[in-house]
Amino acid sequence: MNNAFLDLIRTRRSIRFYQPEQIGDDELATVLDAGTYAPTGHGLQDPWIVAVQNPDLRRRLSQLNASFIEPRPDYDPYYGAPTVVLVFCSSPEKCKTGQADGALVLGTMMLAAHAIGLGTCWINREREMFDTDEGRALMAEMGLPEGLVGVGALSLGHIAKGPKPNKPRKENYYRVVK
Amino acid sequence: MNNAFLDLIRTRRSIRFYQPEQIGDDELATVLDAGTYAPTGHGLQDPWIVAVQNPDLRRRLSQLNASFIEPRPDYDPYYGAPTVVLVFCSSPEKCKTGQADGALVLGTMMLAAHAIGLGTCWINREREMFDTDEGRALMAEMGLPEGLVGVGALSLGHIAKGPKPNKPRKENYYRVVK
Repeated sequence: MNNAFLDLIRTRRSIRFYQPEQIGDDELATVLDAGTYAPTGHGLQDPWIVAVQNPDLRRRLSQLNASFIEPRPDYDPYYGAPTVVLVFCSSPEKCKTGQADGALVLGTMMLAAHAIGLGTCWINREREMFDTDEGRALMAEMGLPEGLVGVGALSLGHIAKGPKPNKPRKENYYRVVK
Repeated sequence: MNNAFLDLIRTRRSIRFYQPEQIGDDELATVLDAGTYAPTGHGLQDPWIVAVQNPDLRRRLSQLNASFIEPRPDYDPYYGAPTVVLVFCSSPEKCKTGQADGALVLGTMMLAAHAIGLGTCWINREREMFDTDEGRALMAEMGLPEGLVGVGALSLGHIAKGPKPNKPRKENYYRVVK
């Protein structure tokens, strides 16, 4: 069984080399809009999505993210992508499914970006970043309410260098009990 | 901007009414295979996927899941779907991104199922279920190694009753900082 959608799922790969030119507003809106249609626990639409294209804010995010890598690297953890998309959710006390909901928003945006020819890579350490005074100040600057926690981020942009072909899937990735 | 893939993302909805007939082996394989192509942290392919079609095992899973709902309901938390797909991951100590990786496997399978006309619903409480002696015995019965933790599950089957149209997305679901 096959269709174009399944091909897209199979051919999406993490992209770590981006063209410096910014993506179009319509491209960005397409990706972000797709993210809002990810399933959420009880349909509560808990996640919060922030796309950052502002160079100064982008630079400060990069520095804060890198501060959680040991030894602290001199590279941009967002791989030089012109857009960084952050996803937040409510605290576990307020929304038990928040982290999973946010993960699905990120995953859905990765597929939507791939569907229109853009590259993404999931970037970690957002939970740690936004659990600091500096991180909370950045969240306030982005207009987010207090009390949210970081889920993850995407680097997003036009692909400069494509990835290698997919690695084989591991043995017994799935099993069926009949 | 639009394409068929984005339409699929927008039209997927949680399904809570299933036809009792089992899905085809090829349909199941398509959904499970798609799940193995979800992105995983460092490409480690950490998650474990188990599709359960065996009626006895299916019934015991349903009872264990329901035991975590207060007051314990007399309905099947998997909504009568003929197939239940469980996803597990390594413990956080072994794989920091395990829960997020597993969530993306579930989300990717939801989209793949929708792409071939099948319905799914994300079911919670798997983390609690498989953190019990009974749950660990079930995992051993399914041939899984020790030490895995539950991420979530999907009910999966042919749709008996379609969902209502999508609710509007919340205000300010995303913002762009230029």
